[in-house]
Amino acid sequence: MAPKESSTKLWGGRFTGSLDPIMTQYNESIYFDRIFYSQDIRGSIAYARANIKTGILTQHEFSEIERGLKAVYKEWESNTFEIKSGVDEDIHTANERRLGEIIGKEISGKLHTGRSRNDQVATDMRLWLKEQLDRLEGYLVDFLKVIAARAEKEIEALMPGYTHLQRAQPIRWSHWMLMYGSFFASDLQRLRELKVRVNKCPLGCGALAGNPFDIDREAMAEELGFDGLIMNSLAGVADRDFVVETMQWGSMLMMHMSRWAEDLIIYSSGEFHFVQLADAYSTGSSLMPQKKNPDSLELLRGKSGRVFGQMAGLMMSVKGIPSTYNKDLQESVEPMLDHVKTVGDSLQIATGVLSTLTIDTDAMLASLTPDMLATDLADYLVRKGVPFRETHHISGQVVALAEQKKKPMDQLSFEELQGVDRRFEKNIIEVFDYSKSVEMRSAKGGTSKKAVLEQIEAVKKALEGGV
Amino acid sequence: MAPKESSTKLWGGRFTGSLDPIMTQYNESIYFDRIFYSQDIRGSIAYARANIKTGILTQHEFSEIERGLKAVYKEWESNTFEIKSGVDEDIHTANERRLGEIIGKEISGKLHTGRSRNDQVATDMRLWLKEQLDRLEGYLVDFLKVIAARAEKEIEALMPGYTHLQRAQPIRWSHWMLMYGSFFASDLQRLRELKVRVNKCPLGCGALAGNPFDIDREAMAEELGFDGLIMNSLAGVADRDFVVETMQWGSMLMMHMSRWAEDLIIYSSGEFHFVQLADAYSTGSSLMPQKKNPDSLELLRGKSGRVFGQMAGLMMSVKGIPSTYNKDLQESVEPMLDHVKTVGDSLQIATGVLSTLTIDTDAMLASLTPDMLATDLADYLVRKGVPFRETHHISGQVVALAEQKKKPMDQLSFEELQGVDRRFEKNIIEVFDYSKSVEMRSAKGGTSKKAVLEQIEAVKKALEGGV
Amino acid sequence: MAPKESSTKLWGGRFTGSLDPIMTQYNESIYFDRIFYSQDIRGSIAYARANIKTGILTQHEFSEIERGLKAVYKEWESNTFEIKSGVDEDIHTANERRLGEIIGKEISGKLHTGRSRNDQVATDMRLWLKEQLDRLEGYLVDFLKVIAARAEKEIEALMPGYTHLQRAQPIRWSHWMLMYGSFFASDLQRLRELKVRVNKCPLGCGALAGNPFDIDREAMAEELGFDGLIMNSLAGVADRDFVVETMQWGSMLMMHMSRWAEDLIIYSSGEFHFVQLADAYSTGSSLMPQKKNPDSLELLRGKSGRVFGQMAGLMMSVKGIPSTYNKDLQESVEPMLDHVKTVGDSLQIATGVLSTLTIDTDAMLASLTPDMLATDLADYLVRKGVPFRETHHISGQVVALAEQKKKPMDQLSFEELQGVDRRFEKNIIEVFDYSKSVEMRSAKGGTSKKAVLEQIEAVKKALEGGV
Amino acid sequence: MAPKESSTKLWGGRFTGSLDPIMTQYNESIYFDRIFYSQDIRGSIAYARANIKTGILTQHEFSEIERGLKAVYKEWESNTFEIKSGVDEDIHTANERRLGEIIGKEISGKLHTGRSRNDQVATDMRLWLKEQLDRLEGYLVDFLKVIAARAEKEIEALMPGYTHLQRAQPIRWSHWMLMYGSFFASDLQRLRELKVRVNKCPLGCGALAGNPFDIDREAMAEELGFDGLIMNSLAGVADRDFVVETMQWGSMLMMHMSRWAEDLIIYSSGEFHFVQLADAYSTGSSLMPQKKNPDSLELLRGKSGRVFGQMAGLMMSVKGIPSTYNKDLQESVEPMLDHVKTVGDSLQIATGVLSTLTIDTDAMLASLTPDMLATDLADYLVRKGVPFRETHHISGQVVALAEQKKKPMDQLSFEELQGVDRRFEKNIIEVFDYSKSVEMRSAKGGTSKKAVLEQIEAVKKALEGGV
Repeated sequence: MAPKESSTKLWGGRFTGSLDPIMTQYNESIYFDRIFYSQDIRGSIAYARANIKTGILTQHEFSEIERGLKAVYKEWESNTFEIKSGVDEDIHTANERRLGEIIGKEISGKLHTGRSRNDQVATDMRLWLKEQLDRLEGYLVDFLKVIAARAEKEIEALMPGYTHLQRAQPIRWSHWMLMYGSFFASDLQRLRELKVRVNKCPLGCGALAGNPFDIDREAMAEELGFDGLIMNSLAGVADRDFVVETMQWGSMLMMHMSRWAEDLIIYSSGEFHFVQLADAYSTGSSLMPQKKNPDSLELLRGKSGRVFGQMAGLMMSVKGIPSTYNKDLQESVEPMLDHVKTVGDSLQIATGVLSTLTIDTDAMLASLTPDMLATDLADYLVRKGVPFRETHHISGQVVALAEQKKKPMDQLSFEELQGVDRRFEKNIIEVFDYSKSVEMRSAKGGTSKKAVLEQIEAVKKALEGGV
Repeated sequence: MAPKESSTKLWGGRFTGSLDPIMTQYNESIYFDRIFYSQDIRGSIAYARANIKTGILTQHEFSEIERGLKAVYKEWESNTFEIKSGVDEDIHTANERRLGEIIGKEISGKLHTGRSRNDQVATDMRLWLKEQLDRLEGYLVDFLKVIAARAEKEIEALMPGYTHLQRAQPIRWSHWMLMYGSFFASDLQRLRELKVRVNKCPLGCGALAGNPFDIDREAMAEELGFDGLIMNSLAGVADRDFVVETMQWGSMLMMHMSRWAEDLIIYSSGEFHFVQLADAYSTGSSLMPQKKNPDSLELLRGKSGRVFGQMAGLMMSVKGIPSTYNKDLQESVEPMLDHVKTVGDSLQIATGVLSTLTIDTDAMLASLTPDMLATDLADYLVRKGVPFRETHHISGQVVALAEQKKKPMDQLSFEELQGVDRRFEKNIIEVFDYSKSVEMRSAKGGTSKKAVLEQIEAVKKALEGGV
Repeated sequence: MAPKESSTKLWGGRFTGSLDPIMTQYNESIYFDRIFYSQDIRGSIAYARANIKTGILTQHEFSEIERGLKAVYKEWESNTFEIKSGVDEDIHTANERRLGEIIGKEISGKLHTGRSRNDQVATDMRLWLKEQLDRLEGYLVDFLKVIAARAEKEIEALMPGYTHLQRAQPIRWSHWMLMYGSFFASDLQRLRELKVRVNKCPLGCGALAGNPFDIDREAMAEELGFDGLIMNSLAGVADRDFVVETMQWGSMLMMHMSRWAEDLIIYSSGEFHFVQLADAYSTGSSLMPQKKNPDSLELLRGKSGRVFGQMAGLMMSVKGIPSTYNKDLQESVEPMLDHVKTVGDSLQIATGVLSTLTIDTDAMLASLTPDMLATDLADYLVRKGVPFRETHHISGQVVALAEQKKKPMDQLSFEELQGVDRRFEKNIIEVFDYSKSVEMRSAKGGTSKKAVLEQIEAVKKALEGGV
Repeated sequence: MAPKESSTKLWGGRFTGSLDPIMTQYNESIYFDRIFYSQDIRGSIAYARANIKTGILTQHEFSEIERGLKAVYKEWESNTFEIKSGVDEDIHTANERRLGEIIGKEISGKLHTGRSRNDQVATDMRLWLKEQLDRLEGYLVDFLKVIAARAEKEIEALMPGYTHLQRAQPIRWSHWMLMYGSFFASDLQRLRELKVRVNKCPLGCGALAGNPFDIDREAMAEELGFDGLIMNSLAGVADRDFVVETMQWGSMLMMHMSRWAEDLIIYSSGEFHFVQLADAYSTGSSLMPQKKNPDSLELLRGKSGRVFGQMAGLMMSVKGIPSTYNKDLQESVEPMLDHVKTVGDSLQIATGVLSTLTIDTDAMLASLTPDMLATDLADYLVRKGVPFRETHHISGQVVALAEQKKKPMDQLSFEELQGVDRRFEKNIIEVFDYSKSVEMRSAKGGTSKKAVLEQIEAVKKALEGGV
């Protein structure tokens, strides 16, 4: 017969006592969630204040709690707070433990009434993240300002535009910068939308079912600077969407950053030589004395994977759990902290890189080749009424002829061009002008000076509404 | 000395001719991008119309092109369009090839003037996606309506609320539904924000540098129903952010769906038995006659991984490329098509599941246990002024006593309770009432009837501003 | 005219000097790669020793270097090594800087001859990882031993087997444990294969092109305990495959762990109540006194996402770079450190959980229901020659009859059964025996006692060939 | 009072009948799992044959089943099998339905005895995958052969080696190819290990608990060409590890492919111009007549994301489920099919690309610059006994002097060099020789001719043990 309950005998395991030290550190979060000390204390003060109205606390008890929490806050600020290892499992228990030591447990023991760490941690995280997103918004705005300013100043510089990393058509260097201006301006727009969702208050949701003392959640939200409430208490504790969405935002931003860095890495290769990074953003080689490596750009590119991984990992963790709070959600904190730091640092690095790099306009010009004007050549005949498909073919023949004659397309003689198509006239030579080609692209969004200036204004306009 | 150029001799490769049939199918997209036939044709008509003003087309030429494209459209609609394998590489070349057969190449050959497949495909994709997102919005609104209606109707049903999948506190079944109402309402909000970014027109960006005939991009955008322009032509062809963002949105929605399905799968297990799926959403076993499996929910949960994978894969592809168009971007199309279909199907399945499942309120009630009122017991003493931390401890002792006496907590005698703490009075028995416990959670977001009704209104309000 | 080279004037950037402090910390790795101090020193000693033979070092110079490096090692061990912030960019420069201080730069300056940090860091990482994988192998073996031992001891316990989380057929509890035994044994096999690839030596690859002093790479590899060489010097510095593969391995192992934890979380819910975790692996609630939450299992499940994210992030970073060393590869270090720690901790936690949990065999038996024997009922008729498809249908009718009569299937009268099919005989009652059902599954891999014992042997056999 | 069971009334849902057509297509797999028709039939024949011994089938019944299944097979082969939509949910039911029509249900109805679709589909998938992995191994071997052959033939070609995409040191073009030879040879090794795990037979595991008729699983495995059994019946149906592991393998291989393609895309840019793709693997532009784009390489790079996404998605799906079979696992099939096809096509494309591309050795040589010999310059002094750290510094001064004098380093006069360091002697000029520099790297793995030839042998040796 099967035993009713197996004995507690161990099957070769390491632990015979009632404690597993690895479990303690596997479980505890104090070493990373201590970063929320200030938010945790502000949240507790707001919670305590609201509990005067519910009758849980007297005015005196509240004052004591407030006094005590401010004292705890000062300890954190002055780096004198002593974490009790194995006791202070997380920032919430640490702060409450210390509060009790300062004001006595009789009063401190009332603070947690009707509250759970479930709504407490969600409140701490949202408060912290909200402040951080404001900070990131500032960095992003700074970066966009540098893009716009530099685009304005260097608008005369021409360079090859690439598709498939093959030279395609001449463009302005500013036009290239503003492509990223367009991407990062969208990131700014998304950030502002995201912040609205982050900035909702879960305090007062309790463990899951709500607060049983009819606490005034709106008053707490207002005191803490939130813009509204999470309107379902189960959702308030169940949800790390605000972290996931932040990471989706951050990983898209860093995806743009990676492409930007990739372009600049290629442009700073010896073969291209369009840009040179400032020394502050380059490093040398321990073996090769001549090397100057664009480490900053490579790190930007590499960290794009890092932040993506954080997003992917958290989505997998959240996806795999049933509703309301599960301890799996603790796994959202560390990645969030690193994500925000990485994105913030990266924006500052990118701003520094772009502020200080120099461009080699000679190299840019030298990289322009007459065959990049093959479309302009085709367009020349288009303007004479020849269908584009035919002109595309004719222009292709000119390209082939130039290759065969081993000379640049603009060095073909007028007779050679006429040999390809009779409709070429003397003024065909005017086509071979990079500046003219660029100025022809004057429709909105194009690479002409007017169109580029308009794009600079668009980026500037996107900055409004800011921090 | 090294040879100047290596001979073209093969090194054991398969191919000696100039064609590799595997390359043809590896490269061609017609078998999936044909889905854009209608968008491609509408885009071409708008492009042709705008080219009257530029002088590229006469009114007559435009009319011919329009007539021809409408004829091509009819062939697609009547399923008589014949794809020429190996010739019609993609929907753009297929449509233009057929147009030429219908109206002659002299005129059809003018259509592509100043345009590239780079801006053309981006236009097709955005047009298609915009329509699909409207469709998805409709499904999502339907789903939320069912949640709200069902929450309203079944507001009396009580069930255990869980944290850590352990019974925590009694809640309303409607409260549980509305947690997901809250998540999906956020998805709706995000969708509406996303649509604004999708609905920008890249037509007129050319290959990358812009349109050289000063085409009126705004007129085209308006004709096609877009809300604005992509304001940088390089960005217009470089960017699949609108697909990435759609997938980020879809994978977050499906992450919610997975948790919802997970809850219901657990609730429909024999051990819980809270819900029973309609036969339409269940299947049997080929071996075990008694089985009724929640296949619909498992597929919803499983497909959450699928759509995440599409997002992750595309982000990796886009992350790894330099700027403007690279052929890697073709890899955005198939995942987008499947993503949108999967999310749309899933929303409809979920709506069907929720519309037709039945709940077993007896089983829900039977699963409520008196120890779930331990917090209420603690709160009883809180109301008498005992600090919560102390009441939490006292209530824990009552739980332990009940376990030790092997009887439910509400079966402990008054004397036994007083043995734990003198402050328990006769009315302590009133605490052991699940309905009362639920009604106590009356603060906003809680599980009381009033609070739940308020949440239903919040969901309904979120639907406004819709499709 | 475009300027030849833009001035270095800043465009609103923060930095006017030649240093960006954020860049310094963005770039430096000393705060995490210091963990390799021992490997770095061993690698340098081996490198120096090999450079006696090349003539780069005299015997005396080597002895000095060895002496100095051992002194540096002692500083690290005794925690007295002082990192010079902003100078000691990484562990390699830190160690060499300190070496120079101890033995003088005249000799220490010869150590790096022909070596690059590119091959140095790859060597450090592989050495470190190899040792860690040995450690993880030990933990995994321990875990498998507990599975086997517990499966042997509790072989009599029966429980429901589930498909689709619906009760399907009775199985042995040991059979369930051994399913995971089978998964984790495969992980062990994969680990052993992986270790072979990790354990290759890149030292002597130089910056990328190889060592110009004909250094004896095999001697160094042997001294350091490697099993062979990376045979292409470009690959030696370009490659973080050994980290990616470790993470693929670790994330598959943790995927198994997550499913194992998910099963146990469900089994420890109040509704199932099959298992109870030891207190050491559970935690209580700050609000609800009655709660006992399986936090250990939830963390195991949640950390499965974390390690997956590390793998996904690194693959994205590596995927997006051209060949040989790029600074992006620095992003492999931190995730590797955390990955290995997380997997190692998790294996130990899981071993602790399984060693100490208790099972409630009464609850397991109570959850078995007669309809789980519907297949056995069908098989009864199969043995009488009735085609299975027909018996499946008949058995389904019996299930339906029992539902209709509102009694368990084994309480149907013989007449009622015969009403469904005449071929049921008196001995049909013998079918309703869970033990018999279990013992019928005697083919290899099945749930009969003999088959389960055979599986235990298979797990034990998989352990051989160990650390 | 709460209603006992909610009515089945709909809450605004679409479906009033008992069927949801979207559910039918959401659930059915026949449109993709039909690809397993042959495996399914072979598995059924083996299963039937084994059931002679168990007594389930007579010899005659088996012969009928075999005859019938062969007829079904012929219908599939000749494309005449008619799928009954809405009836033939999957390949298993389709084949059995058709078998019944051919040989009558009395006998066909016995085939499924003791078997479940759970073990059946796992068997089909493993059989199919095993064959496909053999095919992929063939492609991979072919690719490696081309690498080795080409490396042998073009061993004289020199080019710049890059770190950080900056010119670092001269290397052989063959050395570059063999770096990838080294990566892909590891992929080959991993593939061979993986195949061993795929090639295990789950047939006879039943729904989950095992086969109740003591079927001879080993005989079936042998007939089907498997190398062993899945030794736990729960694992046999629970597990899609063989798919996950295949995808981990495939996504690592494609990560290598992406880097390889990225290198070649950069090398085929106009600025580098080291390689030119054959026309068969390039495409033109619809707008720009001069363009020749490396579409094949870009697709290889892009599809690397696609296959990664499949792996990531499936891991998320599998991670999130409890044990044994859940319908979520159906989500493994479509990604597996596409994954295998994509990897197979990509290997063939890469082989074609490498077989047919031409190299421009002039451009390669032209890209070598004297400063790439700065390390050789430093090594020159090292050989005179100067510590490397000092020579590194001296060589750096020479680089700076050359920059300042605006001439290549090898054009500095002997006096100028001596101005930097007295220890330079007349023979310093011999350092400025790329061939000599390359030949100096003669340690194993280096870029000298001997070392490269050795690497070619290593690749060839890795091919042994093949298909």
